[in-house]
Amino acid sequence: MTTPSPQAVPTYRLSQLAAMVAGRLAGPADPVITGIADLATAQEGQISFVTTEKYLADLAASKATAVLVRPDMRVERPAIEVERPDLAWAALLDVFAPPLPHPQPGVHPSAVVETQLDPSVAVGAHACIGPRTRIGANTVIHPNVTIGPDVQIGRDGVIWPGVVIRERVTIGDRVIIHPNAAIGADGFGYNLIDGRHRKIAHIGTVVIEDDVEIGACSCVDRAKAGATVIGHGTKIDNQVQIAHNVRIGPHSVLAAQSGIAGSSTLGRYVVLAGKAGVSDHLTVGDGVRGAAGCSICKSLPPGAMVSGLMAYDHRQYLRHHALVRRLPELAEKVQELSNELYELRQAIHDRK
Amino acid sequence: MTTPSPQAVPTYRLSQLAAMVAGRLAGPADPVITGIADLATAQEGQISFVTTEKYLADLAASKATAVLVRPDMRVERPAIEVERPDLAWAALLDVFAPPLPHPQPGVHPSAVVETQLDPSVAVGAHACIGPRTRIGANTVIHPNVTIGPDVQIGRDGVIWPGVVIRERVTIGDRVIIHPNAAIGADGFGYNLIDGRHRKIAHIGTVVIEDDVEIGACSCVDRAKAGATVIGHGTKIDNQVQIAHNVRIGPHSVLAAQSGIAGSSTLGRYVVLAGKAGVSDHLTVGDGVRGAAGCSICKSLPPGAMVSGLMAYDHRQYLRHHALVRRLPELAEKVQELSNELYELRQAIHDRK
Amino acid sequence: MTTPSPQAVPTYRLSQLAAMVAGRLAGPADPVITGIADLATAQEGQISFVTTEKYLADLAASKATAVLVRPDMRVERPAIEVERPDLAWAALLDVFAPPLPHPQPGVHPSAVVETQLDPSVAVGAHACIGPRTRIGANTVIHPNVTIGPDVQIGRDGVIWPGVVIRERVTIGDRVIIHPNAAIGADGFGYNLIDGRHRKIAHIGTVVIEDDVEIGACSCVDRAKAGATVIGHGTKIDNQVQIAHNVRIGPHSVLAAQSGIAGSSTLGRYVVLAGKAGVSDHLTVGDGVRGAAGCSICKSLPPGAMVSGLMAYDHRQYLRHHALVRRLPELAEKVQELSNELYELRQAIHDRK
Repeated sequence: MTTPSPQAVPTYRLSQLAAMVAGRLAGPADPVITGIADLATAQEGQISFVTTEKYLADLAASKATAVLVRPDMRVERPAIEVERPDLAWAALLDVFAPPLPHPQPGVHPSAVVETQLDPSVAVGAHACIGPRTRIGANTVIHPNVTIGPDVQIGRDGVIWPGVVIRERVTIGDRVIIHPNAAIGADGFGYNLIDGRHRKIAHIGTVVIEDDVEIGACSCVDRAKAGATVIGHGTKIDNQVQIAHNVRIGPHSVLAAQSGIAGSSTLGRYVVLAGKAGVSDHLTVGDGVRGAAGCSICKSLPPGAMVSGLMAYDHRQYLRHHALVRRLPELAEKVQELSNELYELRQAIHDRK
Repeated sequence: MTTPSPQAVPTYRLSQLAAMVAGRLAGPADPVITGIADLATAQEGQISFVTTEKYLADLAASKATAVLVRPDMRVERPAIEVERPDLAWAALLDVFAPPLPHPQPGVHPSAVVETQLDPSVAVGAHACIGPRTRIGANTVIHPNVTIGPDVQIGRDGVIWPGVVIRERVTIGDRVIIHPNAAIGADGFGYNLIDGRHRKIAHIGTVVIEDDVEIGACSCVDRAKAGATVIGHGTKIDNQVQIAHNVRIGPHSVLAAQSGIAGSSTLGRYVVLAGKAGVSDHLTVGDGVRGAAGCSICKSLPPGAMVSGLMAYDHRQYLRHHALVRRLPELAEKVQELSNELYELRQAIHDRK
Repeated sequence: MTTPSPQAVPTYRLSQLAAMVAGRLAGPADPVITGIADLATAQEGQISFVTTEKYLADLAASKATAVLVRPDMRVERPAIEVERPDLAWAALLDVFAPPLPHPQPGVHPSAVVETQLDPSVAVGAHACIGPRTRIGANTVIHPNVTIGPDVQIGRDGVIWPGVVIRERVTIGDRVIIHPNAAIGADGFGYNLIDGRHRKIAHIGTVVIEDDVEIGACSCVDRAKAGATVIGHGTKIDNQVQIAHNVRIGPHSVLAAQSGIAGSSTLGRYVVLAGKAGVSDHLTVGDGVRGAAGCSICKSLPPGAMVSGLMAYDHRQYLRHHALVRRLPELAEKVQELSNELYELRQAIHDRK
């Protein structure tokens, strides 16, 4: 592994950074900026950002030397004015990013590589790559990765340490797979015959399209037949489970610890919050949003926003949730009505 | 790793396949079959299956050259009639399965093996196996696996890459452990003394009986004393957590992301759906079924079927869930009754 | 790896054990004790414990040769009387614990270590350690661990097999990280620009303070800028997800499969039960307790105890939960009231 010494910190004038983000230098000076941070943790010499007025108080308490703001904001300290301070700040994260600690191009002598690789591919120590596997230019395979035979990986990808990719998996360009993820393990399928769970062979594979990112300790199982598919541009967080024969459309986002059961299909731009679940054999439409911890157990039309176990419409869920919290009052009111009705009947009876 | 070239695709006449599954050739021809798929993804030359009439429309749209059907079904294309098309299809998955990419028998020169192994055992590159560990005939240890000392593993097992098995664990015959699972890590137990969590030594072990399968990134922790036990034939999916001193009976099925807290006991043929949880020190009877996302927090008698956080009877849960969704009506009706009662009293009062 | 043969079982007189735990020998004899177990699994020669009278029946059925009890308990078999039998039993677990199977001090010849290490540090087979990384005295790095460059790890730590620690992470003294955990992976953050999720660089790091323990397959992501922080003495179970920029105070306890979303802050002595979740950008006060499967989606004051999806006060939650289960009765009662009111109006009407 190679990284330049961390002492080599980049420094810029604020005006240089303003030019990089197409912003306007504002405020009292053009200081030297040596780092980037959020408001709470920023130190002297660092640049932070404010998106809305409500954070101006936090800015006042921040040690940040400079700040990215909207053009309509007035602040006392050195600033860059841009329409989207949050995006400009993200762009500056790239500017200040230390280089990633990738292995050098070429194969580390301790790696066990049973295929021919382009010289631009980097393979770290103790990585194992099976026969007939093809890896595109500039892709980085970190130490202790295991890749089976007949795998295809595109160019400009990064496979972090400890990842396992089993045989015949296909992975596109610019794919990033984080530590200890498992791609292409057998799906979970059995037939119960004479009281025993007989394993169903999973002879299919996994297809991960371009620009996908898969989080640490996440799992994408191979299909029974055909392929489990992760559409291009979809981003998957840590500890996410994608079962056999699932198909996820492009540009979806699955937060940590979410899970999709076998053979379900998700559309484009689906967003699942943390710990959301989708049962098997469902169709989840484009742009569906599932709240944290929801359990989707029926198919959903495009654009639905759902919450809860046995998830349904989020706004209805909120309304019902609020009513559940008022159940003590409701039960009491029913008891009062019952009492009043009783008294009224007594009164009428007595009057007879 | 060795696999035959993927080009060597098996081909069969449909009549040959019919004989393999004890089915009857039906339909207009005896075509050559070169693969297997589900209806939606099948290509020309492939065989698929239909279990019930409702999928006949999907069959009509499928490119499958042949299909497995029930004897009472009438279809236009080449077919095999069998009582259970789904089981026959699973059997044909085995027929078309490419060989698994296992390391060759013997120890890869890069592996670090501190024990004597049967020559039929296969140990992949960079695997580490500790002293006094014993492994049965034909078991396969994939690359980058780490197995501690004094472990026992039975015969005909498969330990996929990245798995960690700590010291003194006992594993039966025909056990499959998927990538990056962790077997025998310390249980999670502390005593809070003077404001600090003091670690409790976990000196026990893990016993995994015959024919168990454990999913990718799943964890089975070792016992404080004694053993955490996974009963024979039990199947565990990906990202499942089995805490210290748990005992799971035979033939149970735990779907992905389910978790069992410390010292709980599950019976035989228990089925937990995805993300189901079981609290500590509970007894879950034979054949209990827990729905997706349920949280079992009291012991359950055999055969119970439960749902929900603080899980209870599934049918009751469905009924209550439906009533929660009708709370707006109920609250409105109570308000109406209140209004009517008020009016009635007014009317009576006015009449006096 | 080295361990003494497991045959070398320690044996003690019960009186010796009593001295070790500052207890009083009681009962009919001073037997030889060769092991330790819970009541249910104890064998002859082993010592177990009883904390309350309700377990005396289990004791009667136990094969344990001796038992730890409270001084006010009267039992028939050889015993040690101590105020806290549970703590004394935990202390005896340490006494009977076999030595952990750590690699020898020094670097295994197959490890790839690009930095200078103290000779007391143990590095197992196939471990990879990057340049400029510093590791304190007596720390143990197990086989197949990958540690990036510029990492700092304190003394007396244990990093179990398969763990991945990325560049620039800082880890304190006496930290234990269990198999296949991932420390310092990129946080999950994107900006949606022109329909595509653009990756936000995560240039920050992770700080794990002294005496922290992190479970198997758990993930702690690096910060966008600054650091994700795990406070000293905090204990994290298996398959827990800690997102970028989270800050957890000292002495907190996070049970298995819990997860904290980005930028949330947890106080001191927070306890999350299994599968509990915390949404992003929240503040969870000191001593908060979250029940199993709860989903905390707003900030909580110190000492709160919460349950449920959209978690709120645990006692209220229990009350509402009980009322939900009585909704069928409530709905019926409302219907009866409606009927009675109708009849009453009819009666009044008829009387006119």
